[in-house]
Amino acid sequence: MKILVINCGSSSLKYQLIDMVSENALAKGLVERIGIEGSILTQKANDEKYIIEQPMKDHKDAIKLVLGALIDEKHGVIKDMSEISAVGHRVVHGGEKYASSVLIDDEVMKSLEDCVKLAPLHNPPNIIGINACKALMPNTPMVAVFDTAFHQTIPEHAYIYPIPYELYKKHGVRRYGFHGTSHRFVSMMAAELMEKDIKDLKTITCHLGNGASICAVDGGKSVATSMGFTPLEGIAMGTRSGNIDPAIIPFLMKELNMSIDEVNDMLNKKSGVYGVSGVSSDFRDIEEAAEKGEHRSQLALDIFHSGVKSFIGSYAAVMGGVDCIVFTAGLGENSATSREEICKGLEFLGFSIDEKKNNEGRGFSKIISTEDSKVKVYVIPTDEELMIARDTKEIVEK
Amino acid sequence: MKILVINCGSSSLKYQLIDMVSENALAKGLVERIGIEGSILTQKANDEKYIIEQPMKDHKDAIKLVLGALIDEKHGVIKDMSEISAVGHRVVHGGEKYASSVLIDDEVMKSLEDCVKLAPLHNPPNIIGINACKALMPNTPMVAVFDTAFHQTIPEHAYIYPIPYELYKKHGVRRYGFHGTSHRFVSMMAAELMEKDIKDLKTITCHLGNGASICAVDGGKSVATSMGFTPLEGIAMGTRSGNIDPAIIPFLMKELNMSIDEVNDMLNKKSGVYGVSGVSSDFRDIEEAAEKGEHRSQLALDIFHSGVKSFIGSYAAVMGGVDCIVFTAGLGENSATSREEICKGLEFLGFSIDEKKNNEGRGFSKIISTEDSKVKVYVIPTDEELMIARDTKEIVEK
Repeated sequence: MKILVINCGSSSLKYQLIDMVSENALAKGLVERIGIEGSILTQKANDEKYIIEQPMKDHKDAIKLVLGALIDEKHGVIKDMSEISAVGHRVVHGGEKYASSVLIDDEVMKSLEDCVKLAPLHNPPNIIGINACKALMPNTPMVAVFDTAFHQTIPEHAYIYPIPYELYKKHGVRRYGFHGTSHRFVSMMAAELMEKDIKDLKTITCHLGNGASICAVDGGKSVATSMGFTPLEGIAMGTRSGNIDPAIIPFLMKELNMSIDEVNDMLNKKSGVYGVSGVSSDFRDIEEAAEKGEHRSQLALDIFHSGVKSFIGSYAAVMGGVDCIVFTAGLGENSATSREEICKGLEFLGFSIDEKKNNEGRGFSKIISTEDSKVKVYVIPTDEELMIARDTKEIVEK
Repeated sequence: MKILVINCGSSSLKYQLIDMVSENALAKGLVERIGIEGSILTQKANDEKYIIEQPMKDHKDAIKLVLGALIDEKHGVIKDMSEISAVGHRVVHGGEKYASSVLIDDEVMKSLEDCVKLAPLHNPPNIIGINACKALMPNTPMVAVFDTAFHQTIPEHAYIYPIPYELYKKHGVRRYGFHGTSHRFVSMMAAELMEKDIKDLKTITCHLGNGASICAVDGGKSVATSMGFTPLEGIAMGTRSGNIDPAIIPFLMKELNMSIDEVNDMLNKKSGVYGVSGVSSDFRDIEEAAEKGEHRSQLALDIFHSGVKSFIGSYAAVMGGVDCIVFTAGLGENSATSREEICKGLEFLGFSIDEKKNNEGRGFSKIISTEDSKVKVYVIPTDEELMIARDTKEIVEK
């Protein structure tokens, strides 16, 4: 069985064709600048790179090209589209309706439309991608895998905000949480690596990329997460502020005459480590600047590290302890110094970091806590695409 | 030496005359409805209550009446105003300039004016109160004791928000923290009760009243606190939201057409446990409703308790452990069930609550952790007025 995984952004599209026997990606690709001048598809398969530059006016054009690249006689990996058993779509927001992945039908499509209000930037391209696929592969089953679904087990007191309750009942203002597919994947992997039943584990997963969130996974279920109503909440990120005093917003609007759009734009695109450092939203640039003695870059890193550290403590408290901490995503997988800084001082929780293990090698799962640590600390590369493919397989095989 | 402590609100004024030898309050009083119809002064002294109902057009009128009540032949506690050696004023916001209490002179008055922008609701009545006192007692030294001062030791990475750095440099947008006098008082008391040097202690102080904040006190210094740029940030309070996803504000303005003033008012006055429960901002009412099975009241309590619990875990992580946890202020001192709920599940930090000790008696300092707890947990009645008086004494004696 081969499953195509699609992740649609507003002008881009990522895809993987995954063989479900080996769970290997036969092909991985990225389409950029959809509907913009300079459209380009880049596919990696069979150890070679295949690039197509040609105008794509919309996502349907893009997916047509993706399918063409996959069945291309010279550069493709399958002979015929019929070899694709199902398509798994990453969908950002499933609202309160979806606590797990779902076979897409008309009712699901309607629900996705209903969620546009909650995710105006993310759900529309997801919907466009699904519709484009349906038009080109009308007989292939499609599955929606939601970023929010894993967090639907969060208890009420952790998802209701301390604001008038009517805002939840009437307008759906609550914590949803994101990166759910990643938190689920790495928490499952951690249980496997520990050779324990996930039901017996209290795990804190730190998905640290340009967008970053932390999740408390108790017995395999998300019980708390740092992103909330939107992906703005939580720790400082590349360009997003995370938590701030909400009263800063009225201050900026009144004292600095900023409009709410300007404030929103600032908090999402000009804040986080970028806003503090003034250098970059890329942690590698900031680490470099900090090493050169740039005070504000060091400050940005300190804010980020202490933010993650705080959440680890907080989630240990929420779960009544912790057995396992996982670092994943760009920074979580690649920055040994960040992991070290975050864990510094957390020894009272029952672990210490093995410096050698923390520093050696990349791109594979590894334990980085010392052998005598009661709490195990892992680096686990996330694989949301594989998780989407697994869900899709399970659903279409039902 | 006798010191008058004044705490001025916009239409109210609290005062205590404290004898600095015994550290007892000779008289405590409250003036309400200043400048409003129905002005009233209530003074407690010599085990009796003395009430004066008469029009007071402003704070100067009110303070004149306070001084009159204090020297009243029948109901007063001193013979002459000259017995008041100094006046200690509670001031909410000292900005970055004041890391400790200060003798009030013209320069200080100017700085207080500069801070009005940061505390538009609180500093103006504080300033009015000081000016009124100065007019009536021109030769008595006056000291300002700031709610923010204790938190000026918080490290940069904990007070800079992950937003554009210029907002700090140009406009002072940073974490200040509040309730500093209370956190300082109870953390000092805890060290005394433990018979340890405060320099060797990691303490988490939970000031839980209608306004609530948590503070990490490491070696006697505040290193983190939950309130920030304003007293809105942190945990859910009586009517204040505390932390929410900042993106909720643009959502409310755009989807519900709320103005920024309406949002601000809602987050400050209609949120917190009041907003969730729909019942009251008073925890006693909510506890009562929850006992009767009111789901939203129980939910409000759960949100509040888990918020405090989270901060305790977070601050243990920030300090690399914790030796002592203190509960203070209205709810912290009086609700045994809240303390129990907050501490439930925190046993991994090294303590458990002694149910009997937790439930017996009120109004005095007590330890509520079991004897074999590594981390000690205390209930300590806060006394901001005494702390203000002590600071005032120390400064005028210099």
